[in-house]
Amino acid sequence: MSIIVQKYGGTSVGSTERIRAVAKRVIETRMAYSNVVVVVSAMGDTTDDLIKMAKEVSDHPSPREYDALISTGENISAAILAMAIQAQGVEAISLSGSQAGIYTENLYSKAKITKVDPARIMKELDEGKVVVVTGFQGINDMSDITTIGRGGSDTSAVVLAAALGAPVCEIYTDVDGVYTTDPRIVPEARRLAEISYDEMLELASLGAKVLHPRSVECAKENKITLHVRSSFVSHEGTYVKEDSLMEINKPVTGATLSDEEVMISILKVQDTPGIAGKVFSKLAESAINVDMIVQSTEEDHINNITFTVHQDDLKAATLVGQDIAREINAKGIKYDDSVAKVSIVGVGMISKPGIAARMFRVLGDERINIKLITTSEIKISCVVDRKDARRALKALHQEFELHKL
Amino acid sequence: MSIIVQKYGGTSVGSTERIRAVAKRVIETRMAYSNVVVVVSAMGDTTDDLIKMAKEVSDHPSPREYDALISTGENISAAILAMAIQAQGVEAISLSGSQAGIYTENLYSKAKITKVDPARIMKELDEGKVVVVTGFQGINDMSDITTIGRGGSDTSAVVLAAALGAPVCEIYTDVDGVYTTDPRIVPEARRLAEISYDEMLELASLGAKVLHPRSVECAKENKITLHVRSSFVSHEGTYVKEDSLMEINKPVTGATLSDEEVMISILKVQDTPGIAGKVFSKLAESAINVDMIVQSTEEDHINNITFTVHQDDLKAATLVGQDIAREINAKGIKYDDSVAKVSIVGVGMISKPGIAARMFRVLGDERINIKLITTSEIKISCVVDRKDARRALKALHQEFELHKL
Repeated sequence: MSIIVQKYGGTSVGSTERIRAVAKRVIETRMAYSNVVVVVSAMGDTTDDLIKMAKEVSDHPSPREYDALISTGENISAAILAMAIQAQGVEAISLSGSQAGIYTENLYSKAKITKVDPARIMKELDEGKVVVVTGFQGINDMSDITTIGRGGSDTSAVVLAAALGAPVCEIYTDVDGVYTTDPRIVPEARRLAEISYDEMLELASLGAKVLHPRSVECAKENKITLHVRSSFVSHEGTYVKEDSLMEINKPVTGATLSDEEVMISILKVQDTPGIAGKVFSKLAESAINVDMIVQSTEEDHINNITFTVHQDDLKAATLVGQDIAREINAKGIKYDDSVAKVSIVGVGMISKPGIAARMFRVLGDERINIKLITTSEIKISCVVDRKDARRALKALHQEFELHKL
Repeated sequence: MSIIVQKYGGTSVGSTERIRAVAKRVIETRMAYSNVVVVVSAMGDTTDDLIKMAKEVSDHPSPREYDALISTGENISAAILAMAIQAQGVEAISLSGSQAGIYTENLYSKAKITKVDPARIMKELDEGKVVVVTGFQGINDMSDITTIGRGGSDTSAVVLAAALGAPVCEIYTDVDGVYTTDPRIVPEARRLAEISYDEMLELASLGAKVLHPRSVECAKENKITLHVRSSFVSHEGTYVKEDSLMEINKPVTGATLSDEEVMISILKVQDTPGIAGKVFSKLAESAINVDMIVQSTEEDHINNITFTVHQDDLKAATLVGQDIAREINAKGIKYDDSVAKVSIVGVGMISKPGIAARMFRVLGDERINIKLITTSEIKISCVVDRKDARRALKALHQEFELHKL
């Protein structure tokens, strides 16, 4: 059975005019694949409008009702797309998360998908229909509607591809692929033909907002090739798949900039076993997501613990930090909210030593001060002053010749 | 168990501000009734906006997708109302037609409700929650969403009242009750304290757009008292119930005007058995709803057949009429699109002869020409020139002293 899953989000489904264009593309896809399953996000501002209404009646809407409300955006776009496909002469049917057999855990707003029963989808495909499935939503064991959180529709698409045995899942988004870096900052940025799951995961986590890490993880686990592309153009985008041989010669595949983080330090912490665990448990209890963590020794048995969080969490994190500092007899805390994180990513760096040194040298040549460093096998991140960040990104893109094939 | 079903539609749920007011009223109702089930229509223009979108992508959207689309309006208002009730400190839950156990036949756009399984509603009531149910929608045996046609939410509410054993169903609408006639035309029109099911059925069919006949029929069948009222005021509205003793002394309860009909005549039809059946079968096949039918003898064995249809059906009906006229060798057809129908309704007229005569005399005194007459046991309708209709209504309201208790 030749089958493909396509996901259309963002401006792809921003208007009924766009949806007619998507319908055309879906029908073209049907020439190559006899079975097409389409996952859609909500149209344009629908979700924002629904959230606005919820806020007008309640400061703290119950998560169950909130999900029941915001999931309607996808029901609307799915029905409209099914109609548009029908209007162009091809049979189509829209299915809600519940009808499509997408089951989630018993949680609202960020439920994980636990099971997919594709029986209804298969039945409709067998009858020759294009099946349009609402993204972002599922159903729990009480038959209540749940939503699956950020990056939801991408994840819905990948999960369906896995359940249906589709080897490829196309993700139509606002950009025409994954770039070596943000083209708005570095005009020479080049669209990648291929990228590995791990590289994409690092890029996604680092602020390249093309794909949510969750959907990439799911694709990696199920060995589904993602094809990130745009519905506004016909050319191919970027394939996300197992380590690609094509680009393995390059140590660095992409570079990113994230300027929504702030840096917080807990000062003069006694070097006692379990202290770091205590600090980060407290932050986790307050649902504060910590990104980078660095512990540095200031003098014997006295450390500074520095971490970064999203700027929206600054206030909460400093409050928690002050509590912790008091509790563990640290000197206090300080924070810096004018920083940015610049990173380079590449599976090639595993086998090529000296990449980190080259990165630090480039930043040094640019007289850019490095405030924090973390590394993984395929990524090196530096926190710098926010004012220097774009310059740093350009210099790194140039140094590692990301603009060249 | 003390239980009530309330239905809020129209401007009652026209904005989030109005929904907050509805939430307040629901909570007040909970003082008197320990179990409150609320049925809601879509907010303001939601349904119209959805229909507009459908038209933008398809000239003939499939009924299944159309229902999947337009039913989302009720999902939105139900979730928003549940949130608003919660925000005012009372537990509430929204249920879709499917979750509320409302099953319909396997038809779209105008499915009839076949079964209600109130288990989930009962469970939520038992847990002390206000249950908010989406009006207008149900689910068929393929788990697909269906809508139940015009007057849908009123019917949903009455059906739920029957399934839950609620003796009273409150219908909150744009007006504060049922009036003796349209107060915009006859300022002396009086709000009725009570009206019988049969009278309400005649009034509803005759153009008093307060309640859909279907919901009244359903209430009559299940002996559920309807209370038509407004959410903008606190005073009671009109109770619709078994023949009320209160007003039985009056021969006429209400008067109505409908100016959306046109009159069509098939001229010089041979008086042969089966001709009328042929005419109206053809019209029915074309889905044209015929209201009044009069056959008059012009000369021996030569009749004119005159009927009225909604003005939107004029073109289709004249085309069918011309076909029929040719087929049965009639002389041809003529139509009059500047007519209106004026009616009086009252269970009291059964036992009081001479009411029709009084009606004709009043119109005669006003020098208003009567073009067509039909009567039922509790209703007399006359077609007159559209320009005379409002004057006719006023004169009849005066003659039968409808403004007096």
